[in-house]
Amino acid sequence: MVFEIKARDAAGRLGKFSTPHGTITTPALLPVINPNKLLISPQELQQQFGIEILITNSYIIYKDSNLHQHALENGLHHLLNFSGPIMTDSGAFQSYVYGSVSIDPLEIVRFQHDIGSDIGTILDIFSKPDQTKGEARAAVQETIKRAKMSVSEKKEMLLALPIQGALYPDLRTLCAQKMSQLDAGVFPIGGVVPLMEGQRYADLVHVILAAKQGLDPSKPVHLFGAGHPLLFPLAVALGCDLFDSASYAKFAQDNRLLFSWGTEHLSNLTELPCSCPICSKYSVEELLQETPMSRTQLLAKHNLYVCQAEIRHIRTAITRGNLWELVEQRAIQNPYLFNAVHQLKKTSYFKWLEQQESITKDAALKYSGTFTIYQPLLRRLNHRLLTHYTPPSQNALILPPTQSPYFKRYQNEIQAILQKDPTTTILMNSPMGPVPLELDEMYPYAQSEFPENPDGETRLITKKFIQKFIKHHHFNEINLIDVLLKHNDLTNIITLLDIRRVAAVADMQFGKGYGKILLQPPVEILKSKKTGKIRRVLSKNHHVLSMRAQDGLFTLKIAGGTALHKNCSPPFLRVVVDDEASPFVQEGKSVFSKFVVSCDPNLRPYDECLIVDQNDTLLAVGRCLLTAQEMQSFTVGVAVKTREHISV
Amino acid sequence: MVFEIKARDAAGRLGKFSTPHGTITTPALLPVINPNKLLISPQELQQQFGIEILITNSYIIYKDSNLHQHALENGLHHLLNFSGPIMTDSGAFQSYVYGSVSIDPLEIVRFQHDIGSDIGTILDIFSKPDQTKGEARAAVQETIKRAKMSVSEKKEMLLALPIQGALYPDLRTLCAQKMSQLDAGVFPIGGVVPLMEGQRYADLVHVILAAKQGLDPSKPVHLFGAGHPLLFPLAVALGCDLFDSASYAKFAQDNRLLFSWGTEHLSNLTELPCSCPICSKYSVEELLQETPMSRTQLLAKHNLYVCQAEIRHIRTAITRGNLWELVEQRAIQNPYLFNAVHQLKKTSYFKWLEQQESITKDAALKYSGTFTIYQPLLRRLNHRLLTHYTPPSQNALILPPTQSPYFKRYQNEIQAILQKDPTTTILMNSPMGPVPLELDEMYPYAQSEFPENPDGETRLITKKFIQKFIKHHHFNEINLIDVLLKHNDLTNIITLLDIRRVAAVADMQFGKGYGKILLQPPVEILKSKKTGKIRRVLSKNHHVLSMRAQDGLFTLKIAGGTALHKNCSPPFLRVVVDDEASPFVQEGKSVFSKFVVSCDPNLRPYDECLIVDQNDTLLAVGRCLLTAQEMQSFTVGVAVKTREHISV
Repeated sequence: MVFEIKARDAAGRLGKFSTPHGTITTPALLPVINPNKLLISPQELQQQFGIEILITNSYIIYKDSNLHQHALENGLHHLLNFSGPIMTDSGAFQSYVYGSVSIDPLEIVRFQHDIGSDIGTILDIFSKPDQTKGEARAAVQETIKRAKMSVSEKKEMLLALPIQGALYPDLRTLCAQKMSQLDAGVFPIGGVVPLMEGQRYADLVHVILAAKQGLDPSKPVHLFGAGHPLLFPLAVALGCDLFDSASYAKFAQDNRLLFSWGTEHLSNLTELPCSCPICSKYSVEELLQETPMSRTQLLAKHNLYVCQAEIRHIRTAITRGNLWELVEQRAIQNPYLFNAVHQLKKTSYFKWLEQQESITKDAALKYSGTFTIYQPLLRRLNHRLLTHYTPPSQNALILPPTQSPYFKRYQNEIQAILQKDPTTTILMNSPMGPVPLELDEMYPYAQSEFPENPDGETRLITKKFIQKFIKHHHFNEINLIDVLLKHNDLTNIITLLDIRRVAAVADMQFGKGYGKILLQPPVEILKSKKTGKIRRVLSKNHHVLSMRAQDGLFTLKIAGGTALHKNCSPPFLRVVVDDEASPFVQEGKSVFSKFVVSCDPNLRPYDECLIVDQNDTLLAVGRCLLTAQEMQSFTVGVAVKTREHISV
Repeated sequence: MVFEIKARDAAGRLGKFSTPHGTITTPALLPVINPNKLLISPQELQQQFGIEILITNSYIIYKDSNLHQHALENGLHHLLNFSGPIMTDSGAFQSYVYGSVSIDPLEIVRFQHDIGSDIGTILDIFSKPDQTKGEARAAVQETIKRAKMSVSEKKEMLLALPIQGALYPDLRTLCAQKMSQLDAGVFPIGGVVPLMEGQRYADLVHVILAAKQGLDPSKPVHLFGAGHPLLFPLAVALGCDLFDSASYAKFAQDNRLLFSWGTEHLSNLTELPCSCPICSKYSVEELLQETPMSRTQLLAKHNLYVCQAEIRHIRTAITRGNLWELVEQRAIQNPYLFNAVHQLKKTSYFKWLEQQESITKDAALKYSGTFTIYQPLLRRLNHRLLTHYTPPSQNALILPPTQSPYFKRYQNEIQAILQKDPTTTILMNSPMGPVPLELDEMYPYAQSEFPENPDGETRLITKKFIQKFIKHHHFNEINLIDVLLKHNDLTNIITLLDIRRVAAVADMQFGKGYGKILLQPPVEILKSKKTGKIRRVLSKNHHVLSMRAQDGLFTLKIAGGTALHKNCSPPFLRVVVDDEASPFVQEGKSVFSKFVVSCDPNLRPYDECLIVDQNDTLLAVGRCLLTAQEMQSFTVGVAVKTREHISV
C-alpha cells in the first residue's frame, strides 16, 4: 500500500492511493453500496460516473446468510461484480444507531480479510458529540485497544483505524497520535455523522483539525459518512482525502437534489438549475411523472454527477492552487458553513494551516470575499514584512491605494523621489496590505486580482496592518507634494532599485539578512531583453540566483546554496538525506521521501532548500514539494526536486 | 405581440413573450447562428438544449446572393430549418467593427420583414464607450430618427429599437424615453460589447440602469451581445430579459470553456470541473485528442449546457425570490463583477431598485456575503423602522445579538420586564439590524438565515443603524439586570404583545398610524391552535386582517379595506380600474393590467391594495403582482389579484 502526493494546496492533497485492486486518485468519493438493493450497478458507477472505489458494509454481509456464504466462497468483488478496490465498514455505525451489534471485534476483521476486502475497518466505538469527556475517553481507549488487536489479524489487508474522541480536541489528537504508531492503511475520522446531520460544521472543523494535528500525514484521511458536495471543498482544504456516503441514494429517495450550494427538494423547483445529463434532458414535470423507482434512480444519478463534478473541481483547484477560493465561494452558500470557515481565523489553527501552505501557486490570488485576507498565505506574507523585510531607510513614501502593476502606475513619482533621496523606502497601498516597491513582482503581489473596493472588513484589516507596519519599522512618512525634482540619470536609479529588489525578495524568501549573504560584491544583475524583468543574479562572478518570471521568486543556484550553507548553521534550509541516497543526489536525482533523515522544520512546500548528507556536506540545491513533516513521514514519492548538484 | 410577467424578483422578470412563431420563456438566451457555418444545427439546439429562439444576422444574408435569394423565396425559417421564433440583427455591429456598412436603413428593415423575421432590428448607430457627448448625442438622434422611419416599414413584424447613448446616463435615459413612445417589440441595449470585452461591468451597470429608468417596462429588454453566463444573474436582476451571443461557439473555437464563475482554457485544466453531459463523459486528455472541429463542437455544447443551466438557475431564483443571492454568489467570482455590484449601493440606484422590490418572497433571506445588507429589501425595512414603526414607549430593553426565533430565546427576560412595565419597547439585536419584538414573525425577520458572525462591514452597518434607530426614537436604554420581578399573570402580557404586534406589522406594511385605523375597539385576535401564531384580527366584530403564517404579513380583508378607504384619501393604496372593468371586479375577478387607469406610486409588488373605480368607490381589496409603473404600462396579464369584493 502506498499513498503519494501529486499536488497540494491549503492542507489538501491530490494523491494516488494504491490498493490490491488498483490505484485511485484522491480526493475521492466512495459511494455506499447496499448489496441487497443496488440502485445503480457498480459497473455503471465505474463507467458512467468515473467512480474508482466503492464502500460496503461487512456487518450486513456477515449477518445475511446468503451474502455471507457468497462472499466467503467467491469473494466480495464477485458479490458486487466490481473489479476495482472495495472498502468495507465494520458495523460501528450500526452499533451507534441500534445501541449495539452482536459481533466479535476480531471476528469482523478476520471476516473482512477472508472475503477479500481491500480496506477493512476495525469495529471502533462511535463517540457521540454529546458525550462527557469520561465517556469519550473510554471510547477512545477501547478503540485503540481494538485497533492494536486487529492489526495482527489483518494480514495483507489494508486496515482503517478510525479517530474518535467526540468534541474533545485533546482526545482526538491523542487518538490520532496513538493510531499513527500502528500499521494503518487509512485514518477515518469517526463519530461525525451527527455533526453533519445537524449542520454543526464549526464543530466538524475543530474535530478534523484536532485529528489532523496528531496524524501521520503519509496515510489518506477518510471523513466517515460525508456525502454532501457542499462540504467537500472545506474538508479537503483541511486535509481529508476520502469521502463515503449513501446520501446520493438517500436524498434521491426523498426527492431531494444535491447541489454544490446545498439541497433542493424537487417540489420546490420550477426548473432544474443544473447542467448534468439528467437536468439537461428532463424537466421538473417529466421527473414528477416518472414512477417513484425510476425517479429515485434519475435523482441518484443527478446527485452522483454533481458530487463527481465537485470532486473534479476540487482536484483542479488543488493543481492550480486556488482551493481556498473555492472554500470561500461555498461558505457564503450556507450560514453554518460560513461559521465554520470563520473558525479558521483563530491563531492556533493559523499556525498549523500556515505550515501546510505552499510558497507559490500557479493561479493568481483572487479576492473571493471577506475571508480572503485571512488566507494563511497572506497572513504569512504580512508577518514576513515585519520579520524578513528591511526597508532601505526610515523615510517612506506611501503611495495611494492602487492595483498591480504598481510600479507602472507611479513611475514618474517614484523616479522623482528616488532622485531626491535614493534611500527612500517606497510603499504602495494595496487591497492586500503594503507592498514595498522591491517586492512588487513577487507572488502574490503581481499575481493577484482584487476589486477596487473590497469589503469593509478587508479594508479595515489592511489599514490596521499598514499602521502596524509603519510603526514597526519606525517610518517617517514623506509627502509626495514635496517631491519636485527634475528627472535625470535614470540608469543609476534603476540599478539601485534592482539591487534593492533582489535583496528584499531574498529576505522575504529565506529570512532577514540572507539577501546580503547572497549579494557579495561585485554584483551583476541580468535582465530579460523582452520583459525587462530580472532573470539572473551574479555575485563574485558566480550565478547565485534566478528569478522565475511567473511568480517573481528566486530559485537557488548551487553557488548561492554554497554561500548560504557556509554562512548559516544547521538545520537552516537543510534537507538531510540518508548516506545511501547521497550518490544519487550527487548525480542530480531527486530526493525521495524515504531517504529524508531530517529537515529544517520551517521549510514550506515549494521552498528552495539545501540538500546535505548526514555530515552536513552540501550535495545539491533543490525545491521542496512537501511540508517538513510530510518529507519525514512519507515512504514514497518525491520530497525534493533537485535542481543543481555539486560536481564530484 | 405580448409580453407578460409570470414572476418577478429584484428588477428581474420571468416572462412569456409571444412572437409569430411561438411563445418563449424569458430570461432567454438566443444563440447566434451563422447561416454559412452551422456548428450545431438549429434542431439540435431546440431538442438537446431547450433553445426556444435563435438570432441571425440579416445583413450577412442580404449580402450573400445565395442566402439572399433562398431567404426571399422560401423564408428565413426554411433557410435555417427552424420552426420557432427567429430574431434578426441589422448590421449595426458590423458597421461598428468595419467602420460602415453599405445598406439603406429602411431597405434592411423591409428585407427583414420580407424574409419573415419574427423580430427585426433597425440599423441603429452603435455608440462607442469612448465617444464624446456630442458624438453620442448625434448617434442617439440618428438612431431615434431611423427608428421612427423604420416603424412604418415593419408591418406585422416585431421591431427591436436599440437604446444607445455611450456612457452618458442622461442620453441613455432620453433615448429609452423616446423609443418607448414608438411601436417597439423589444428594446435592445446597444453599444455594450466593448464594455463586456473589457470586463467594464461597472460601466455596464450604469448603462443598463440608465436605460431601464427611461423604458416602458411592458416590453422585453435585450442585452445585445451578452453571452457569458457570469453576467446573466446581474443583468437579469437589473431588468434584462434576452441575451444573444456567439460566445458559446467563439470561445469553443479558442479551446475556452464557459462556466458560471468565468472562463477556463482547456490547456489549464487537468480535470473538467463540471457536471454537463460533455464533462461527465470526456476527460481533458480525450478532448485534446479529438480533431479540432470535433473538439470545437464538444466545447460549444459544453458552453451551451452551462449557459442554459444558468438561465434555469436564474428563473428558479426569480420564482423563489432569491435572485440577489445568486448575484452576490457570482460577484465574488470576478473582481470586476464585484466592482459592478458595489455600484448598486449608490442611493440613486437604490431608489429605483427599491421600487422594483417585492414586499415578500417565497425563499428565506439568506446571507450571502458583504452585499446582503445592502439588498433593497433590507434597506427599505430599516428605513420603515424609522418612518413606519411606533415604539410602545421610550423605555427600551435591547437584548443581546441572537438569531431567529428571537422571542423564544429571551422568553423569560421579556416576560419579566413587561410585568414590571408593560409599555417597555423590546428590541432584539440581529445581524440584519434591530428587530422590535412586535415584528419578529414578519418577513424577512423570521424567514432569514444569517451566520453568527457575518463580515465586519455588515456588523458595522448594523451597529450604526441601531445607534441611529435609538437616537431617532429617543430611546432610554434599560438594563436587563434591573429586571428582577417574579413572573405572574402572563395572559395579559401576551394579549398586550399580540395587539402591539398587530399594530406594528400593519404600520410597517401600510404606514405609520394605519394600524390604529384598523384596530378600532373592540379588538379580537384569533390564533392558530396548532402554532399559537396570530391568524385573524377582528375590529368592531368585523374581520379586518389575516396574518399569513409563512411571512407574518397581513392580507387585507374587505372590512379592513373599507376602514382604510374611509380614512385615507387617494391615491393612497388605490389601484383605479376602468369603469368597463368594474363589474368584473365586483364579481371577484382579478384586475388585468390593461384596465388599470392609475395607482398609488408607492405600491410595490405583493403589496395589499384597494381596488376602486374612477369615482374612488371601493370595489374590492387585493394583492398587487407588479410594480406601480408596470401596472400602468402592461396591456396583458394580471396586475392585481382580487381577494375579496364588496357585495353589490
